[in-house]
Amino acid sequence: MDIPEIVLQMALEAKAAARKLGTLSRGVKDRVILRMAELLKERQAEIQAENKKDVDAALKEGHPAAFIDRLMLTDKVMAAMVQGLKEVAALPDPVGAVIGMWVRPNGLLVGRQRIPLGVIGFIYESRPNVTVDAAALCLKSGNAVILKGGKEALNSNLALARIMQQALTEAQAPAAAVQVIPAVAREATLELLKQDELVDLIIPRGGEGLIRFVAEHSRIPVLKHYKGVCHIFVDEGADLDLAETVCFNAKVQRPGVCNAMETLLVHEAAAPRFLPRMLARFREAGVELRGCPRTVKLDPQVIPAKAEDWGYEFLDLILAVKVVPDLDAALEHIARYSSNHTEAIITRDYDRAQRFLKEVDSSVVLVNASTRFNDGGELGLGAEIGINTSKLHAFGPMGLEELTTTKFIVYGSGQIRT
Amino acid sequence: MDIPEIVLQMALEAKAAARKLGTLSRGVKDRVILRMAELLKERQAEIQAENKKDVDAALKEGHPAAFIDRLMLTDKVMAAMVQGLKEVAALPDPVGAVIGMWVRPNGLLVGRQRIPLGVIGFIYESRPNVTVDAAALCLKSGNAVILKGGKEALNSNLALARIMQQALTEAQAPAAAVQVIPAVAREATLELLKQDELVDLIIPRGGEGLIRFVAEHSRIPVLKHYKGVCHIFVDEGADLDLAETVCFNAKVQRPGVCNAMETLLVHEAAAPRFLPRMLARFREAGVELRGCPRTVKLDPQVIPAKAEDWGYEFLDLILAVKVVPDLDAALEHIARYSSNHTEAIITRDYDRAQRFLKEVDSSVVLVNASTRFNDGGELGLGAEIGINTSKLHAFGPMGLEELTTTKFIVYGSGQIRT
Repeated sequence: MDIPEIVLQMALEAKAAARKLGTLSRGVKDRVILRMAELLKERQAEIQAENKKDVDAALKEGHPAAFIDRLMLTDKVMAAMVQGLKEVAALPDPVGAVIGMWVRPNGLLVGRQRIPLGVIGFIYESRPNVTVDAAALCLKSGNAVILKGGKEALNSNLALARIMQQALTEAQAPAAAVQVIPAVAREATLELLKQDELVDLIIPRGGEGLIRFVAEHSRIPVLKHYKGVCHIFVDEGADLDLAETVCFNAKVQRPGVCNAMETLLVHEAAAPRFLPRMLARFREAGVELRGCPRTVKLDPQVIPAKAEDWGYEFLDLILAVKVVPDLDAALEHIARYSSNHTEAIITRDYDRAQRFLKEVDSSVVLVNASTRFNDGGELGLGAEIGINTSKLHAFGPMGLEELTTTKFIVYGSGQIRT
Repeated sequence: MDIPEIVLQMALEAKAAARKLGTLSRGVKDRVILRMAELLKERQAEIQAENKKDVDAALKEGHPAAFIDRLMLTDKVMAAMVQGLKEVAALPDPVGAVIGMWVRPNGLLVGRQRIPLGVIGFIYESRPNVTVDAAALCLKSGNAVILKGGKEALNSNLALARIMQQALTEAQAPAAAVQVIPAVAREATLELLKQDELVDLIIPRGGEGLIRFVAEHSRIPVLKHYKGVCHIFVDEGADLDLAETVCFNAKVQRPGVCNAMETLLVHEAAAPRFLPRMLARFREAGVELRGCPRTVKLDPQVIPAKAEDWGYEFLDLILAVKVVPDLDAALEHIARYSSNHTEAIITRDYDRAQRFLKEVDSSVVLVNASTRFNDGGELGLGAEIGINTSKLHAFGPMGLEELTTTKFIVYGSGQIRT
């Protein structure tokens, strides 16, 4: 079979598997997930041997250390995968829950019941641990998943898929619930993105280039975020110790992730007291600072910001800093440059806190807390498969419930429409 | 300005309007909607004069009577539009409601709050009353809407838009909340479908051709259904009087709509007693019957069904009828031919009722009630802007809540991520 035939066949099998998965009880799904965890431990050597092939090839190709680091299934990464599976098994099953039921005047009893989405296509880069994380979340939410990982991780991903399919088969669940596309060509991704009759949702995870490629070529709905350009606004009268702690955390704790702060906005009344201490602390931590003219005036070591620094996702120890006259100016700046991902205000003022929460159009809006909390686990969703900054279906982090939809169920006694 | 410039400008203004609309109180929105109702009455003659231009042109072009009927803003249709506006004003405002709030171990208070989607593009055929219905639902849910109706209704739609914009302006709400594209070329639709940075959602309403055109050309998410191929399964041991009443209603009450029954499946144990009386009644009502060989055997007047009659949306007084050996066979048939729109079972058996509700993958699944109840109003959503048979965002009828999404709001006290 050539690649289009292989992908079509996988999609057909996934759709058939999805029909069965939707009716599996929580008990069966959890047994499969826990058995996957056992098998990962039992067959760790085999998986790591396959992973070594990928790592050796990637080293030969001269990939950078950070790339190799993400590709490698060390003992520690393996243990984290096992732990992740156990955590997903412990989460409640979203499927079947009736989230509202009411009686119509004619006596019809109408409810909304959670059901799986069906078949999910998950497209990602060369991080084989993601294969297991994503598969577990899809399986727990009753969805079949077709995984297309980075080409450098193919041997690892196929080894992981074999083990997950063994766990499915042992429980008499359909093995096609979890499939890894056994091809590395971009053609395979393109073929998957065409299957709008069979695949219900595409989730891409990775760099902006991968995500734009997927969004541009998909005939299937895509839940995604291109980037996280997160802002914090430090208000007049804010608790400056609190502001310093939160801003430092938001920028420095893990600068390479989507929920790290990229632009700091400071009320002009707070700037003279706040910026010197804050910027000194950032500088100590190795943060490169790029500021508006007023910021540079307060701290001449700051590099003058260029136009393109506003709304830029540095993903690094670099921060854009701007002094603004008031909350309105901060809201205007955010409306113009935000990626609708995460924004926070640091304030002691009740009205401005409420206004910020109401008017900022981002998936997570916080008062007096770090932007780093935009994460399914941190917000209490249990786990997450990604963050969506389009408004449809699920705005923000997507956990198990966000991998479901609802159908209407209606209990009647002979009602007809008149 | 040429068409692309006009559409882009409208989308920019809609986006700016949406930012304001999202923060309008219910009071203001309802005042605008009720004022629209007043103005429709006050300026009925003016609207009908514009409508007459459209109707005269359509008559000259030789459109059929049913088309003219849908195009014409009679006194009765005008009164229904006014009534519709009053009903939307009376519905609760979905925006701002917090649909869940919880405390994290670190003290963060996390909630999900309903917010508008933003800008909605609504594409439909030559039914000018839909212009007002759709605009009211979008406005009440805090969304800006760009309307692109059928080319034969342009004068009517522009007259209605002027009046709705007057009501907005009087209340100092942004007039760009409701805009009708003042062009009839298909180019205008194509241009709207490209504005994925400015428009959040496209809802097409009309025939399958229009909807496929929109879905194929849109870069923006589309909520839609192509067709409604609704099935009813009459089970062994069903109450045959109830079955007859419900099936008759589902097929005959309004055969041209998407939630009318298209295929009747009958358990073989019920068929000999049920089909003769049911088919006789259908025949009396002028329904053309196309059956499987076993159906034809029971009633030789039935036309033998062709392969393409299964899964076909007749939208007319035509019905496909099939005798099946059991519930499994009915479920198989539905899984193969259903459009995921609406299916019903007529039964007295508890287990089979529950299995049908669980296993049928349609947006509305009913026991002992007519498929005609798949409608936002009938199911208790208050009103509907359309029905979606894709799983994303809102599966089934879409009311005001389905025109919103949720964002996470987080009340902190200095929390940082460690």
